[in-house]
Amino acid sequence: MKQAKVRLYVDHPLGQGQTVSLDRDQAHYLFGVMRLGVGDVVALFNGREGEFPARVIEAGKRKGVLECLEQSRPLHMPPDLWLCFAPIKKARTDFIVEKAAEMGAALIQPMSTEFTNSERIRRDRLQAHAIEAAEQCGGTYVPEVVDLMRMDKLLDAWPDDRQIMFCDEALVGAAETLTAASGHRWAIFIGPEGGFSDRERARLHAMDNAHPVSLGPRILRADTAAVAAMTMWQQVLGDWG
Amino acid sequence: MKQAKVRLYVDHPLGQGQTVSLDRDQAHYLFGVMRLGVGDVVALFNGREGEFPARVIEAGKRKGVLECLEQSRPLHMPPDLWLCFAPIKKARTDFIVEKAAEMGAALIQPMSTEFTNSERIRRDRLQAHAIEAAEQCGGTYVPEVVDLMRMDKLLDAWPDDRQIMFCDEALVGAAETLTAASGHRWAIFIGPEGGFSDRERARLHAMDNAHPVSLGPRILRADTAAVAAMTMWQQVLGDWG
Repeated sequence: MKQAKVRLYVDHPLGQGQTVSLDRDQAHYLFGVMRLGVGDVVALFNGREGEFPARVIEAGKRKGVLECLEQSRPLHMPPDLWLCFAPIKKARTDFIVEKAAEMGAALIQPMSTEFTNSERIRRDRLQAHAIEAAEQCGGTYVPEVVDLMRMDKLLDAWPDDRQIMFCDEALVGAAETLTAASGHRWAIFIGPEGGFSDRERARLHAMDNAHPVSLGPRILRADTAAVAAMTMWQQVLGDWG
Repeated sequence: MKQAKVRLYVDHPLGQGQTVSLDRDQAHYLFGVMRLGVGDVVALFNGREGEFPARVIEAGKRKGVLECLEQSRPLHMPPDLWLCFAPIKKARTDFIVEKAAEMGAALIQPMSTEFTNSERIRRDRLQAHAIEAAEQCGGTYVPEVVDLMRMDKLLDAWPDDRQIMFCDEALVGAAETLTAASGHRWAIFIGPEGGFSDRERARLHAMDNAHPVSLGPRILRADTAAVAAMTMWQQVLGDWG
């Protein structure tokens, strides 16, 4: 069987023998951009049922139909990790979402904090970035991007059984060591440029399930901090072990 | 004393009482963009002598003079870590250089590999990115960006006492655990899109001082891999401990 060179996320049930109709953008991408045609094989995943190679059986300018072959990979769910971050400039926010999908977060929560400059996000555009990153990195799961929420509201309703790895710029040295003892439901909190406010830091430090960590002696940009924090978490508590 | 809001790298000796003349671009940045004037204080560093607050004593459109006050921070040298990476698309190459400065690499070595698409870099532009990142992250050191080199030539002259943390996409599971036992001179090797070739992988695996590591079950883009690898290294062997 030919190895699929293209991976495509589809919001459609998948299974051996299942046919899948493409939408206009997908047909344009496969047949216009990637120059595929009838008989070519593409890898499909839908975030729920793993990955299936699928053969093109109809290829049109604006539509197309594929038929799934035997499952090539089972669904690999990421660990139960939320990435909560304060949106920054557009390109760097896009970057954080891309990295969250690659690094294996389950949910992406934009949050506004006292020092957040950007109070608006395009949730649909960020979700599209997460999908593209999942297609690229070989993931079979796409993290959900949820609506922007104020950090104080988020903490008001914070679940008792979800731990917070809190990346505290002001912290040098006295960081906690992460361990699995606190459970397997986690969230990483990344502040905006300028960090969390004193009030926000105090509130997080007072929470039993918040664990302050240090990301070294230099001040990292939020996008760098997100990748570094996810690396630390995945090594100890996630699926990199 | 007023806290300096602006940090500026200058290629000039620094010391208490030392006057520093600005070049045209620096004068434009401080007085045109940042709207500073005589009496304002800027933090200067030169990568060799730590950080000094400096007061503006002359401010012109195309020139300016500052006088250093008492040293505010000593030089903090990063660990002896080289980041060796295969250049990718322009924006992502810029990003890798920025991240190397933030994460604390000492030297940035672009290298061309069998699967490298981009065979040319603008060394001066990348060096400027490293400077800007050092200004931003509070570092007192700027990693040197050296000229692009072929990976095979680089390995032909590889120093015996420098270990290689080799990020092997094809590796799942059997990764080595990094320890300080191998010494404190290291390099991280990040491949291009498509990874290292079989020949390159075989050569690295055959080297006594190359240590293969895995960056998790998803395929990371080169820019993500660079940050993740530097995080792993800094936690165990660098200055994050």
